[in-house]
Amino acid sequence: MSTETEKVIADLIAFRDQRQWQDFHTLTNLSRALGLEASEVEKIFLWKENDQALTQQDKTELKFELADVLTYAYYMCEKLKVDPNEIVEAKLAQNKKRHWQFEQKRGTK
Amino acid sequence: MSTETEKVIADLIAFRDQRQWQDFHTLTNLSRALGLEASEVEKIFLWKENDQALTQQDKTELKFELADVLTYAYYMCEKLKVDPNEIVEAKLAQNKKRHWQFEQKRGTK
Amino acid sequence: MSTETEKVIADLIAFRDQRQWQDFHTLTNLSRALGLEASEVEKIFLWKENDQALTQQDKTELKFELADVLTYAYYMCEKLKVDPNEIVEAKLAQNKKRHWQFEQKRGTK
Amino acid sequence: MSTETEKVIADLIAFRDQRQWQDFHTLTNLSRALGLEASEVEKIFLWKENDQALTQQDKTELKFELADVLTYAYYMCEKLKVDPNEIVEAKLAQNKKRHWQFEQKRGTK
Repeated sequence: MSTETEKVIADLIAFRDQRQWQDFHTLTNLSRALGLEASEVEKIFLWKENDQALTQQDKTELKFELADVLTYAYYMCEKLKVDPNEIVEAKLAQNKKRHWQFEQKRGTK
Repeated sequence: MSTETEKVIADLIAFRDQRQWQDFHTLTNLSRALGLEASEVEKIFLWKENDQALTQQDKTELKFELADVLTYAYYMCEKLKVDPNEIVEAKLAQNKKRHWQFEQKRGTK
Repeated sequence: MSTETEKVIADLIAFRDQRQWQDFHTLTNLSRALGLEASEVEKIFLWKENDQALTQQDKTELKFELADVLTYAYYMCEKLKVDPNEIVEAKLAQNKKRHWQFEQKRGTK
Repeated sequence: MSTETEKVIADLIAFRDQRQWQDFHTLTNLSRALGLEASEVEKIFLWKENDQALTQQDKTELKFELADVLTYAYYMCEKLKVDPNEIVEAKLAQNKKRHWQFEQKRGTK
């Protein structure tokens, strides 16, 4: 894991432990929190037609909501003892093999 | 940004560009994909009581679904020109100031 | 459609039209609102272990958030010109035929 | 409750009980299922620009996914002993009083 990601995750764990939230941070509960934070990201786009409708304030808010999604994804990675970047690369490798099926599906739309 | 995160994001962008998916990757569309992948994470926990109900297969699947969430979060970070780890640290710094309000709320439960 | 459901949907449409929100109520936008309201339902359960952790206040809030989910589902049904109860019965009929596959899957868990 | 809604809910409860799924149908679990089905609705819109991109097949699929959302909302209403149409009307009455605040917010955009 990169030193930077290690530090971020260590900071997140310290924050959790200082407040004694470990018992709440089961994968079951964290998955729900992750879904909720993803909704907070989606909320910014509600009733908007496209990206051009986003204000600077929306984009600032979006960065903080994305941070929340990443935060819970990192907490879950830590519990599963995986490196976020490693699993992204692993999934990408898998997608590169599957990709031709998706292109076919898109071609027929 | 850490060299590792830079590389991962560069790989994701290359994957997108090779398939000419740039036009689909608006923040509006990416936010919806992010929400859907977060649901794929939640789906693993459906009808399960707690973490002990997770099988090894569930955990493996969970890593790949988390990778999808991270992937779309990274795509959105790239469009917003932010470093994933930086925004997590920025949100954490904000949470450290707000934390006392949350502790009060938890105390009265 | 039952007279009661017809009335509810008519009231919802009147509310929308009085505020001239028709243009916002595309199926695309409504689907996002539906997802967000479902998240508001899930939010009530965040960090809670089970139903016994729900307070009376939680249950009252839950009824109103469920109402929001039903509201957007009704708006989408109205646009698709379908009766909510009819599509539920149609899906149930489909599920009754598929059910044996699900039972098999559950049996091997 | 309308006789029609009563019948639909009775059918859903019979389906659940015949398969002995009552123990799985806690509000906690049902809320997660509700969120997942709402995501299945959103999935139909992924990568699409607007309603015009929906095919007839998409709309048929949409009706069945909406039915799943309504199904879980009905299951939760049954557990909370509320009538779906009544809570929608109650929330609408509440929204009619709040509406002027929302119009103000929209006016300043």
